[in-house]
Amino acid sequence: MSPMFIPGPVDVHPAVLAAQTQPMLPHRSQEFESLFQGARYKAQPLFGTRAQVFITASSGTGLQEAAVRNLAKENVLCLVNGAFSERWFEVAKSNSKQADPLMVEWGKAIVPAQVAGALKRKKYELVTIVHNETSTGVQNPVQDLAAVVRENNPDTLICVDAVSSLGGVKIEMDKWGLDMVLTSSQKCLAIPPGLALAAVSDRALDYARRVPDRGWYFDLVRLAEHLVKDSTPATPALSLIYALDMQLDRIMAEGLENRFARHSQMAALVQNWVSANGFEVFAEGGYRSQTVTAVSNTMELDIGELNEFLIKKQMRIANGYGQLKEKTFRIAHMGDTQIEEINTLLSALDEFITRYQKSSKS
Amino acid sequence: MSPMFIPGPVDVHPAVLAAQTQPMLPHRSQEFESLFQGARYKAQPLFGTRAQVFITASSGTGLQEAAVRNLAKENVLCLVNGAFSERWFEVAKSNSKQADPLMVEWGKAIVPAQVAGALKRKKYELVTIVHNETSTGVQNPVQDLAAVVRENNPDTLICVDAVSSLGGVKIEMDKWGLDMVLTSSQKCLAIPPGLALAAVSDRALDYARRVPDRGWYFDLVRLAEHLVKDSTPATPALSLIYALDMQLDRIMAEGLENRFARHSQMAALVQNWVSANGFEVFAEGGYRSQTVTAVSNTMELDIGELNEFLIKKQMRIANGYGQLKEKTFRIAHMGDTQIEEINTLLSALDEFITRYQKSSKS
Repeated sequence: MSPMFIPGPVDVHPAVLAAQTQPMLPHRSQEFESLFQGARYKAQPLFGTRAQVFITASSGTGLQEAAVRNLAKENVLCLVNGAFSERWFEVAKSNSKQADPLMVEWGKAIVPAQVAGALKRKKYELVTIVHNETSTGVQNPVQDLAAVVRENNPDTLICVDAVSSLGGVKIEMDKWGLDMVLTSSQKCLAIPPGLALAAVSDRALDYARRVPDRGWYFDLVRLAEHLVKDSTPATPALSLIYALDMQLDRIMAEGLENRFARHSQMAALVQNWVSANGFEVFAEGGYRSQTVTAVSNTMELDIGELNEFLIKKQMRIANGYGQLKEKTFRIAHMGDTQIEEINTLLSALDEFITRYQKSSKS
Repeated sequence: MSPMFIPGPVDVHPAVLAAQTQPMLPHRSQEFESLFQGARYKAQPLFGTRAQVFITASSGTGLQEAAVRNLAKENVLCLVNGAFSERWFEVAKSNSKQADPLMVEWGKAIVPAQVAGALKRKKYELVTIVHNETSTGVQNPVQDLAAVVRENNPDTLICVDAVSSLGGVKIEMDKWGLDMVLTSSQKCLAIPPGLALAAVSDRALDYARRVPDRGWYFDLVRLAEHLVKDSTPATPALSLIYALDMQLDRIMAEGLENRFARHSQMAALVQNWVSANGFEVFAEGGYRSQTVTAVSNTMELDIGELNEFLIKKQMRIANGYGQLKEKTFRIAHMGDTQIEEINTLLSALDEFITRYQKSSKS
């Protein structure tokens, strides 16, 4: 079943799938240490950082938990405008933090004035921001949000979930002044799921050292202590690290700017098609994702039927997420997906809609 | 580099490595749900249980954290006689539990009378037991330990780490009255690292529902809620689940009893060789592991040199773990390793020792 236009797990290149089949290695060995160090350094440009990159055997949500458990003793502000930012708020509460949500309507972006308002009401140790809401296709203005946090309270740590943007959209962690940026393997990086990556600033690590009850598996301080030996506290997911290492080489061979431009071109193609066909992009103008488009299902298409039609053509899209199921459908344009594949998908969607309209009239 | 005789990650069969290369699937799809359900049910006989088997994208240590965070509000007794049982105690403390260690000398087994003594001094919600200490090659008598816990306090939950035994040694979770048994993919199951599995009893799940601060990623209640839909709260590690599914078929094709017998035969070969060559098995008699043997380095071999010699022959063993480095070396006989491979290794060890003795004399 390929190509898939779902927002993760995305299709993985055959060479990257094959990289997983390399023989096992002891994780206390020179060979593993070299591999692991190489992958961590190759990943830094994708984060726009010189900070250390941690790699865990987990999904991205595991590192959402790491953020709230390590970077706040108590007070967390969670910016919420979709399912995954809401999840982060749930993760914070589940870890007994005093988490306050700043709720913004799904489909709208979170803007600096809203954050400034929240920061004036209470002092927070940590603000959590989802860069690209996979559920709504909204890209929040992280650089501007970070600036307003810094302005209002320079000590507040800023952690960004870039799960569905990192590797597809330019992120400048150091320039924007972010303290932690996390992502997972199965979205724009186009690796199988099961790995998560996070870059963590020195000041965030310093703060973590003073936070009690950090747990063990996602304890950033423990991870940092092992990183100096190019190792991990727990057993690393070796076959996925092989895949990551090869895919980072492929990403560098494409060139980061080229990769970002390809994502923007695919987004423009999809979003122009949406407008030209009487649909609406669910996300408000100015904040539309470069990696996934949620389409308001104004034509009331049966999304299950649409996908059955597409599956016969070896393609697949995603229904809306959670409360947006059937009300929207989602087209991912991320990872290694190519422009010609997007064009093929849009032609198939045209064909389905023409048939749908005919059958509605008859 | 193969065969490796290190206690994880072990060599993975080429067909299982290749299973990882199957194309990605949406994890909210019938195809994934069938795969996931199949793997979970196929795993039950290895645990000796009818309880639900959970599969997480993590190492085994992640599920050590799940156990202490879900199954105790406060009081945990950790049976400690090696590095991994000590880790579990650290994990419990890191999660702010009132954990007491029952410390037994490394190389000795933990026996029922010791546990009875500890249980008489204090009431515990949870006892943690490592079945097979990978650091010392001791196999603790889990069935007897569980019986003494039940006898002294029927309400105390019993959680067993079977990371380096499950799939190589018979475990009867239901018959022995265990509440949670956890393992990871890269030991006796012979799958690449990155997956952990745990079977959890209904009474343990009931107890977890009353425990606060369970977190999100390793929350057993949340995992159970998703399991009824054959899904997971966080993104599952699909390529590793493909590998697990194929390997469970291979294990069933070998036959569980045959697999356990092969592990015992390999253990006997190694342990007989140890005695016949003037070494000593580090673990006390009667409690020697069926999956890994720690050898007291009475001949003061240089283990680095030994491994260099073996690596030229495409083999590799493991140094002692932590405080036992150089004082012991470890030979793993687990997973898909075959008897003829053990014989080849032992011949190579003979050759090394003969040379070593000659060079010591000269």
